[in-house]
Order: sequence, then C-alpha cells, then structure tokens
Amino acid sequence: MANSRFQRRFEELLAVADIRIGGDRPWDMQVHREEAFAKFFAYGSLGMGESYMDGWWDCDQLDELVSRASGADLQKKMRPSDLLLAVQARLMDPMGGRRGSREGERHYELGREFYRRMLDKRMIYSCGYWKDAATLDEAQEHKLDLMARKLRLEPGMRVLDIGCGWGGSIHYLAERYGVSGMAVTISPDQYEVARELCRGLPVEIRLQDYRKVDERFDCSYSIDMLGHVGRRNYRAYMEAVKRNLRPRGLHLVQTAGSSNSTVKADPWVNRYIFPGGHIPSPKQVTEAAEGVLVLEDWHSFTQDYDRTFMCWHANLPSAWESLDGGPDDRLKRMWSYYLQSFAGVFRSGASQLWQVVFSSAGPGPDYFR
Amino acid sequence: MANSRFQRRFEELLAVADIRIGGDRPWDMQVHREEAFAKFFAYGSLGMGESYMDGWWDCDQLDELVSRASGADLQKKMRPSDLLLAVQARLMDPMGGRRGSREGERHYELGREFYRRMLDKRMIYSCGYWKDAATLDEAQEHKLDLMARKLRLEPGMRVLDIGCGWGGSIHYLAERYGVSGMAVTISPDQYEVARELCRGLPVEIRLQDYRKVDERFDCSYSIDMLGHVGRRNYRAYMEAVKRNLRPRGLHLVQTAGSSNSTVKADPWVNRYIFPGGHIPSPKQVTEAAEGVLVLEDWHSFTQDYDRTFMCWHANLPSAWESLDGGPDDRLKRMWSYYLQSFAGVFRSGASQLWQVVFSSAGPGPDYFR
Repeated sequence: MANSRFQRRFEELLAVADIRIGGDRPWDMQVHREEAFAKFFAYGSLGMGESYMDGWWDCDQLDELVSRASGADLQKKMRPSDLLLAVQARLMDPMGGRRGSREGERHYELGREFYRRMLDKRMIYSCGYWKDAATLDEAQEHKLDLMARKLRLEPGMRVLDIGCGWGGSIHYLAERYGVSGMAVTISPDQYEVARELCRGLPVEIRLQDYRKVDERFDCSYSIDMLGHVGRRNYRAYMEAVKRNLRPRGLHLVQTAGSSNSTVKADPWVNRYIFPGGHIPSPKQVTEAAEGVLVLEDWHSFTQDYDRTFMCWHANLPSAWESLDGGPDDRLKRMWSYYLQSFAGVFRSGASQLWQVVFSSAGPGPDYFR
Repeated sequence: MANSRFQRRFEELLAVADIRIGGDRPWDMQVHREEAFAKFFAYGSLGMGESYMDGWWDCDQLDELVSRASGADLQKKMRPSDLLLAVQARLMDPMGGRRGSREGERHYELGREFYRRMLDKRMIYSCGYWKDAATLDEAQEHKLDLMARKLRLEPGMRVLDIGCGWGGSIHYLAERYGVSGMAVTISPDQYEVARELCRGLPVEIRLQDYRKVDERFDCSYSIDMLGHVGRRNYRAYMEAVKRNLRPRGLHLVQTAGSSNSTVKADPWVNRYIFPGGHIPSPKQVTEAAEGVLVLEDWHSFTQDYDRTFMCWHANLPSAWESLDGGPDDRLKRMWSYYLQSFAGVFRSGASQLWQVVFSSAGPGPDYFR
C-alpha cells in the first residue's frame, strides 16, 4: 500500500518531464522492484543511482531520461508533502542509502588500460570540442587547438599544466606548438604515464600538489580539474595560478559548472564518482578571482560534453575487456549510469561546460571572436 | 613651502608611472599653478579633473598620461602619510572641491547636433568593434553585426532594445536583419530622434522606463546602459530582462566594467559626466544574474573603447561648431579631459569593456568561436 503511494506521486512528478513508468518510449522507465519508489523518495539522487546499480530499474536511453528530468527541474516541483513521503520512505528502508566502504574510489582504480580504451588516443579525460570534429580523437585535439589560440601560444613559451592527467594535453601542445613547461599531477599512475609520454620533450612532469609550485610561466591552464579542488579552495586555486604567472600572462580554466551556487555535490556522484568534488557557479568563480586575476573571456560549449560522454559510453564494452575476469554487473551499471546521466545533465543545460580565460593584470588581449 | 611638499610627494608618485612634471615627453605634465598639487592631494580624481578644467595644468597626450597613471595603480601606492597631506591640503583649500550647481547635467545638454558631429553617422554612443574596421562608422556597424551573430538574429524575430539612445542600433538591426521589436529610452530628445529614424520600420519606440516593459521578446540587448542603472539595481535589471524574454531567449549586455567590485563611482565622472553611474565587476554581474539568467558568454574588447574614445575626441573640434557662440573654455576642457582620460583608463585595462550573453534558461547555444 505504502509503495503504491510512492509510485503514484513519482509518476506525477515524472509526467512533468513526459516520462512514464513502463512506457514504450526509449526514455521511459522500466521498474522491476516496487521498493524502488520508496528508495527514490528516501534518498533522492543517491537512491536513483544505487537502485539502478542494483538492477531495480532500467531505461533504454538513460541519458535522455536524465536530460528530460533535469531539464524539467523536477527537484523544484517537489511539494512539502513530498518531504513527508521522504521521511516515511526512510523509515521503511533505514539502511538502503548507507553503503559504506570505498566504492567511490574504484572509479579511479580500473587501471590505465581501461581508460586507454574508453578515452581518445591521447587519453584526455575531459570535454572535447566538437565544432568541426567528426571523431573523439579530433574533438580532443581541436579542444587543445582552441586553448592554444586563446592562450596565444608561441614557440618557446613556458607553460604550466595544472592537473595534467596522463599527460596527453601538454604532450600535444609541446609537439604541435613548440612550447616547453611543466605539468603536475597528484596521481602516481598518471605521473608515470605522463613522464614516459613526454620523454624527449622540454616538459617536466612533477608528482606534486599544484599549490606547491612556485615558478613563473608565460601561461597556464587546467582542464576539468577545478571541479576536484573543492568549494573552499577556489580562492587558493586563483592565488596559486597568479603566483605562477608572469605579468600579463594568461590562464585558461576548463571546468564543468552550474549556473546556481551550491554548497554540496550531488550525493551519488560524490560517493561513487568524484569524492570531494564540487562544480562552481559563475558567482563562485568570479568571487574567487576578484582582486587576484582579471576575467578576460568566458566560453560555454556545454553540448560538447554531452557528445563526449556518449562517446566514452560507446567505448565501455571495449574498455571492460581490459579487466581480468571482467567487471561485476554492479560496476558495469555504475559506469553506464555515470556516463549516461552526465551526458543527460549537460544536454539539459542543468550543468554547463566552460572555458574561462583570466589574465594576471593589465590590458588583456582582444579579438577572441 | 607647503606647496613644495605636495609637489615633491606628487612627483615621487608620478615617477612610478614614468611621468614627470615639466618633462618633455608628450605624456609629461605641465603644471601652471603650484596650488594644483595641494588640490590633487585634497580631492584626488575630482581635484585632478577640476584643476584641469580650470587650466591649472596641461598635457599634450592626456590619454597616455592617464593610461600610465592608472596602469601603475598609483592609488595603491599611496602611503598613510599621504592621508595627512590630503587633510592638510583640504584645510588649505576648503572650497575648491565643492562646486555645486548642475554642471554634470550639461554633459547631456549639448543638443543632438553636437553628438551627430562627435559620433558616427548612426549616432551610437558606445564602444565600437574595431577588429576589421577602419573607420568609426564601420566599427559601430561591426559591433552591431557581432551582436546579431551572438543573439542569432533571424528575420521576423522580435527584439527589445533597452536604453536605445537615438535609435541607431535598433534601426540598423531592423533594416539589415529583418527583425521587429521595441526600443525604450527615458530621454525625450532621444525618443523623438529614434521615432523619426525608425518611421516605416516594424519597431515601436517608447519613452518608458525599461522596468515597466512587460512583454515577451525572442531576444533583447542593452548597450552601455548597465553602467547607468546604479549598483543597487543590477538585480532588478536582470529580473526585468528575464520577464521580457521567451524561454531559451538570449540577452546581450554590453557594458564598461571593472575587475574589482566598487561601491562608489569616480567622483569627477560622477559629478561632471555620468551622475549616478557605476560600473560593475564580474562578481556583481554574476551575483545579480544568479538564479535569474544563465551566463552563456563573456567577451572583452577593452582596447576598442580606447580607440572609440580617441575617435570621438578627434571629432570634438567639429562638434563644438554646432554650438551657438561656441563653448566656453571650461566646457571644452571638461570634454577633452573626459574623452582622453576614458581612452587612457581603457588602454591601461583599469576599466574593461565587455559583451556578456545570458540565456533565460535551458540549454544555450554553443560555438561562439
């Protein structure tokens, strides 16, 4: 009885986004266990994600379901009475939302071969630029070319890459644009791969916290790294950038963002995908930069992240083959949920993808258009 | 004796910006009355401007002097002991800083013929876009073309122009891009000129506060108008924009800005040029927009305002001929000081010029680059 109440109200909410339980459109939701509805009310996004991982429900086009749900801003459609439902649901399912352990950390523990197969050939784990690109490889290179234009790279310039991943970006820029520089990461595995990759190029790879770097570069950048520093560290990020930049030097930060300032990350994402992450708002970014760096340019290409995530999702079957013994079903479903729901959230515009250029001071460059 | 102390300290400060009193470079300062130094200390920017208007000092390239002084951020080089000098100077010159009257209002009281001669042929009193322009006329048209691209104008779209001036912008967009719409101004003179200009086009000109408009447009824009609404009204501005925009509609705001949030306007500018004006910081803009509009794009072309102001300055001699009996010397010097010092402030990057695009919500457009 209680379950049918949860279901009825959940169906009402989904109807706002034209999603049906048991419908036959690809974005409709197939629910296999009726306890799922209580779990959705009890734990919100965490309950949705975990119950999906557990196989309690399915959807042919999960990305499209999420796009519709986040585009309709269903969270804001909740009524006070829904809070009561949530309390009742929690009482029915006291342990369901509280998986402990280190499951979140498994996101980064799959080994470089997994990422080599899921990502483009340069292993760049961030949004590509699809304007004139046909493949993921091209989209990633065009993104780096776009950055090179914005940073006005010239041969001989010294560049700092903050949070360099497996080194694919600094490697490309050094080879293609003749720059030298430094790239830092705090991941021992990424450090090893990046060092190997950049051997013979005038690029130093360091296993170091970016806040410890204290040099002077002609320019610097970070790609999809700001979302990992945490909300309280945006100011420290800007200050570290400034300290390492020559006068009138440029900095480019590519990051996912949200038009509204939030304090907490999405609980499912925080637990399973990016622990400690937080995506900033324009207000949080400009507040952090004020008095430190000068805003020069702000460019959104949100839809490109949808397409990038869908490419990674399409590569998943091949990536799983890299794992000895294959993945368990729950891990597979976690990754499908992650990649498709992120695609959907960017498709709806609920999250955005930005490249923002700052200068260290003085007259900045004109004519980015 | 006191005067020489003021002069000595003032020379020290200027030296930081490589400016000399009585030097022979075009940006050096020729001071004709030694009381000027006390006035500078007593009244800061107001004292500088008023004493220039009164002919107490001169400079061959005032724009370059201001660019150097504001680029060196001389205000921040002031020491606590300079405050004492300021107090002493005020005691010596108790009335000098306090000209009453309505002198500021004269800025807009010169008649349309004055502006017709000073501005481009469309009488657009805002920053042009010089990327591929050779003349002021071209720079203004290219600015409007740039806006049309960013707003994705298509024939038949209904457009709102907030603070339309003499109507040159909406007239151009309606003629060139086949849009219709509405333009509002609170100046009776501008209203008359704009109505005459747009006769025969599907554009309604209204003598109305933009906050009173309550319709739905496909997109809207304001050009160099946000700096006039006042710091406390940025939020009301964003809300009025949102109310008048269809879902997923775009808004473009072109405005002068400052990388640091300020509470008060420059006192000389406030008294003589733009009473009640205030230029926003990125933080103030994003704060005002949060929860109302979604930031899509931020484009700086600060150096273009330097060039625009220098063009207007070059047109001043012709503009003065429009005045019966000609201008008095103080008015002429006020305008020279205004146009050249603004050119210099943008040249140094101390003020900036932005076009910012917002959407009313949902997935915004990609590929502005």
